[in-house]
Amino acid sequence: MFCLRVPTDPAWAKEAARDLDAVLIDHAHCEMKAATNALSLVLRHPDDLALVRALTDLAREELDHFRRVVAFVDRRGLRLGAPPIDNYAGELRRAASALPHANVPSITDRLLVGALIEARSCERFKLLLDALPADTSPELKVFYEELFACEARHYRMYVDLARDALRTHWRLLNPAAEDRDVESALQGRLGLLADAEGRIVRSLAERDFRATVHG
Amino acid sequence: MFCLRVPTDPAWAKEAARDLDAVLIDHAHCEMKAATNALSLVLRHPDDLALVRALTDLAREELDHFRRVVAFVDRRGLRLGAPPIDNYAGELRRAASALPHANVPSITDRLLVGALIEARSCERFKLLLDALPADTSPELKVFYEELFACEARHYRMYVDLARDALRTHWRLLNPAAEDRDVESALQGRLGLLADAEGRIVRSLAERDFRATVHG
Repeated sequence: MFCLRVPTDPAWAKEAARDLDAVLIDHAHCEMKAATNALSLVLRHPDDLALVRALTDLAREELDHFRRVVAFVDRRGLRLGAPPIDNYAGELRRAASALPHANVPSITDRLLVGALIEARSCERFKLLLDALPADTSPELKVFYEELFACEARHYRMYVDLARDALRTHWRLLNPAAEDRDVESALQGRLGLLADAEGRIVRSLAERDFRATVHG
Repeated sequence: MFCLRVPTDPAWAKEAARDLDAVLIDHAHCEMKAATNALSLVLRHPDDLALVRALTDLAREELDHFRRVVAFVDRRGLRLGAPPIDNYAGELRRAASALPHANVPSITDRLLVGALIEARSCERFKLLLDALPADTSPELKVFYEELFACEARHYRMYVDLARDALRTHWRLLNPAAEDRDVESALQGRLGLLADAEGRIVRSLAERDFRATVHG
């Protein structure tokens, strides 16, 4: 799906459908992390107002999703608990920092990491939807169908923002930089990060198989 | 206004109306800080779902305000820049930590600090509205009228959440704790924090008089 290199192990969907409580709690934390991550990028790049607007709107939407997942958590009498350590996102960010610089600004990498996280969520929500038992509440199904579409939209938005940031950076170095060269560099970088994401997903599944949205 | 002990120096409103650009930039940062502060409280208290819901909704509203102040900043061709160090909120939080514990949980103090910050914003937006020159855009006036009402609502919400947190804490210690005792302790604590807030506002005005929403 999208640029993902490694499909999620089919056993994941079975485990997720069996332990929907664990998925919901993990999912709530993921939405909150998505919101605070978007806001941390706003705080680092206050003078790119197009980025500020897009990521603020994204954060508001993620908080709306958080609120709605929390309602399911509450209705099932579950505790949210403290957010678990996010090995998946942490390792992905470290992999991005370890790539050679190659005239790619760190904001482009951060946005592409955001894109990959959204792509992985999108893939897993689809797998979950297909695996949900027949007696799952229609409300929960409709919610995950909506979320599936949102994650796909967020993926594209992150890639678009990453492209804009890369183009701005390149035009500062060379005002004649062409769009097709920017695009080729962007796709190359996304490919490298997608390779890293695939390795991380595979390694986390081997080390610690759990019903989480990522990892 | 509300529980504030020290009115803002009338010279503030003159300076703010004269340098509306500085007010707008500072105000944008204040909205973002209000949102991230609310989310940091959610992250610390994930198992109080009423608090989680109220503060998540608050954060979404503050982000909406941020987005709208940023639109004014953009239209005036201003740069947002990095957020300035927030001496006002920092000193207020330190003053709260320095108070004797007195069976008041830290979440109650944090919520009362939130209430005071909202009260001060509310007071200043009113002063600003009264001082705006006649040729100010009606859009900006309507915006600050709306914000004035929002800050008053947020003040009450923070006080209500602080009361709930204090009541929960007291009932854990003594299930027979009475509402009137909780209320009296809450008002006492709010009074101590309002005293500290007044001292901080006066001291900041002496040290560094600027057209900022707080400080």
